[in-house]
Amino acid sequence: MDKIKPRTLSGFLELLPDRESQMQAIQQILRETYSLFGFTPIDTPLMEASEVLLAKGGGETEKQIYRFEKGDSDLSLRFDLTVPLAKYVAMNAGQLAFPFRRYQIGKVYRGERAQRGRFREFYQADVDVIGDGTLDPSNEAEMVAIICTVFSRLGLDRFQVRINNRKLLNGLFSWLGLSNKAQAVMTAIDKLDKIGPEKVCALLVEDLGVAPDIAEKLMNVVSSPDPAATLDSLEGCDPALDDGIRELKLVTGLLPSFGVPADKWRLDLTIARGLDYYTGTVYETTLLDHPEVGSVCSGGRYDDLAAYYTDRKLPGVGVSIGVSRLFFILQDQDLLRDEAIVPPCDALVIPMGDVLDWAVQTATVLRNAGIRSQIYMEQKKAKAKFAYADKLRIPFAVVVGEDERDAGAVSLKDLRTGEQQTLSPAQAAEAIHTGLPDRGKPVQEGRKQE
Amino acid sequence: MDKIKPRTLSGFLELLPDRESQMQAIQQILRETYSLFGFTPIDTPLMEASEVLLAKGGGETEKQIYRFEKGDSDLSLRFDLTVPLAKYVAMNAGQLAFPFRRYQIGKVYRGERAQRGRFREFYQADVDVIGDGTLDPSNEAEMVAIICTVFSRLGLDRFQVRINNRKLLNGLFSWLGLSNKAQAVMTAIDKLDKIGPEKVCALLVEDLGVAPDIAEKLMNVVSSPDPAATLDSLEGCDPALDDGIRELKLVTGLLPSFGVPADKWRLDLTIARGLDYYTGTVYETTLLDHPEVGSVCSGGRYDDLAAYYTDRKLPGVGVSIGVSRLFFILQDQDLLRDEAIVPPCDALVIPMGDVLDWAVQTATVLRNAGIRSQIYMEQKKAKAKFAYADKLRIPFAVVVGEDERDAGAVSLKDLRTGEQQTLSPAQAAEAIHTGLPDRGKPVQEGRKQE
Repeated sequence: MDKIKPRTLSGFLELLPDRESQMQAIQQILRETYSLFGFTPIDTPLMEASEVLLAKGGGETEKQIYRFEKGDSDLSLRFDLTVPLAKYVAMNAGQLAFPFRRYQIGKVYRGERAQRGRFREFYQADVDVIGDGTLDPSNEAEMVAIICTVFSRLGLDRFQVRINNRKLLNGLFSWLGLSNKAQAVMTAIDKLDKIGPEKVCALLVEDLGVAPDIAEKLMNVVSSPDPAATLDSLEGCDPALDDGIRELKLVTGLLPSFGVPADKWRLDLTIARGLDYYTGTVYETTLLDHPEVGSVCSGGRYDDLAAYYTDRKLPGVGVSIGVSRLFFILQDQDLLRDEAIVPPCDALVIPMGDVLDWAVQTATVLRNAGIRSQIYMEQKKAKAKFAYADKLRIPFAVVVGEDERDAGAVSLKDLRTGEQQTLSPAQAAEAIHTGLPDRGKPVQEGRKQE
Repeated sequence: MDKIKPRTLSGFLELLPDRESQMQAIQQILRETYSLFGFTPIDTPLMEASEVLLAKGGGETEKQIYRFEKGDSDLSLRFDLTVPLAKYVAMNAGQLAFPFRRYQIGKVYRGERAQRGRFREFYQADVDVIGDGTLDPSNEAEMVAIICTVFSRLGLDRFQVRINNRKLLNGLFSWLGLSNKAQAVMTAIDKLDKIGPEKVCALLVEDLGVAPDIAEKLMNVVSSPDPAATLDSLEGCDPALDDGIRELKLVTGLLPSFGVPADKWRLDLTIARGLDYYTGTVYETTLLDHPEVGSVCSGGRYDDLAAYYTDRKLPGVGVSIGVSRLFFILQDQDLLRDEAIVPPCDALVIPMGDVLDWAVQTATVLRNAGIRSQIYMEQKKAKAKFAYADKLRIPFAVVVGEDERDAGAVSLKDLRTGEQQTLSPAQAAEAIHTGLPDRGKPVQEGRKQE
């Protein structure tokens, strides 16, 4: 028979079991954290009618979309979790309780040019709160707490949430008479990190026709080393600007009560976030030791989630983590802890001789006690059986031979220490429970320096 | 702005939050049970190169496959989890430890004609153990224990695993001189449940040219009311048949040690399972009160998982649950327990008056204590806030007003009993922990009779 070479598509992440167990641990932390903040999980199809999915227009992403026909249906794979959320809320508004707080962790598809660390199929983990007509700005503060809790629980400490507010930016433009070119100015400011203030200033003056003194004023504000003080000095200059300042103060003023440490966030007046539908607080999250990877968790406040589906005004705020990309970065930077790898089981029951039945009974006792157990059922030499346990990092072997069976006992071996004791199966279950390792957080910074 | 009507494709399951929480509970039980038996999770792409996915030939399913082009790639969505497993094991054989025990819960796609309870996108939950070259038949007994544990943990008691063995069927055909028409005879036997023994007999004689006495002999065996006794009486008739009988006895003989109750399985010599790659034990699982829905968990032993990718012989055994279909049946039969619905949070912190900061601090204390908490941040009347908690089935309200704040306290209200007490936030966290409901199993049989 001719063989087909098995392969996985490029740009599609497929992990070996050890790595997958770390990925699962990370996703589990996301689920638990989102739940802790009172969000409910939803699950939407990977595929939608193209007419529905692309109602808003795909913009830059449109050519990346996997779109195809099946029968007489024009179908597309989702490219984010926001459009499916908009559809879900618009469709089900009558049955949901608002504010509607949902999280969703799922795969999305973008047919990008394949390159290292860029995926065509990748997990996003989104959390959003959606209001019906109105949504209090205090919700915007909570997002910072969620981001901080997620990253701390993962084991990352060297991160910072950068916060800005679109009302404040718009107020700044209003004050400086730049409202009519707000979008272009914002795009220029977005480049500050990459090209520096002088070049942005040149861009503003030469390309956008901003007066030099206005450009300088703007640059002084957005790249101020002490943005809070700068904002204080601007109070009373312009009503729209005052609005923005007030909202930013409200949001940041709540952060201590949310338990967000002062070093985990900072104002950054240069953040605009490309999407034009943000209307309030915007967020980016930087790994301080890896600024080159860009933001690993971003989002913001928007006033109209689903305008293309419904007249109902659905303001919201949310953030999204590109989980596959984050995982790739953590792996690439050697930040994933081997100790956090979860083996397939905690106990390998190893029959020695013609004692399969007793081995099975032992495993049944262990499983009934909640111990994740496997019976090694193949006819192999003892050495091969223990090598199997080693390769899979299984912490305990439960060896049963004829002597043990006749005594109603097992020989429990801690494979990390070599320590061995003869016990009843029930006692073995207890000893394993006690001896199970705490695998700790999936991530550990500064490993290379150790 | 013209609105697009938001809709979900027909044949795609999308659940409201309450239902979704029940679906999540079911999937969580599957994950935990598979883990308990020492299986490791893997995750493969939804999409594969068509050449790879269809290497085996799609057979009947081929026209149901979602297949399309993107750039110069010919792509298909997976239609089961077995082919991706074959690909994964063939690709990674050098890095895996055998026996390789994996589970996978994921969505698969089949463009079937949409009809009630049939889905085009649906979850499958597969568990398989794969050997390298050989795999001991005792693994085939363990699958029955896994099925039983899953269904018991879901809350289903009225089910039965039906067991047969392909070696035994083949031995029977050998004994009766029917080996040259084995496949056709098996297809006829598969119809026993639907058309009854007389019509199958007629089929065998008239359509397949089986001698009437042979057909009768065959029917007497496969539809015997006491298959175990019938098998005993057949020992020594034919060496191939003896092989099958021996293997079936080995497998069923281990079931008590695996803790499988006697009423949870039975021999059923009519089960063949359509796929021609099964070679040993085969399983079907029936809901005793709903035989009309067919098998809800099926599978079997196979000798060659990935012959179309590799020369390496990879025998295995596995079973699969069609999770979306099972969920649909449970919902349709009103077997999902409302009490098992998980609300988005356990405590709703309700600020009354200008006390947002204290409400946030309270929620932070609760969250740090592991209580899933939401702060009600919208400007609404008290009545609306409590109605929100009711609608979402949130068990506790933590009310904070100015008096509470000034006393460093909160007013904890159990929304199920109306009981109210004034406590510190830390005490409230403890009281909530103590008072959290045990939501029990997701399924409850016999509800309609209650």
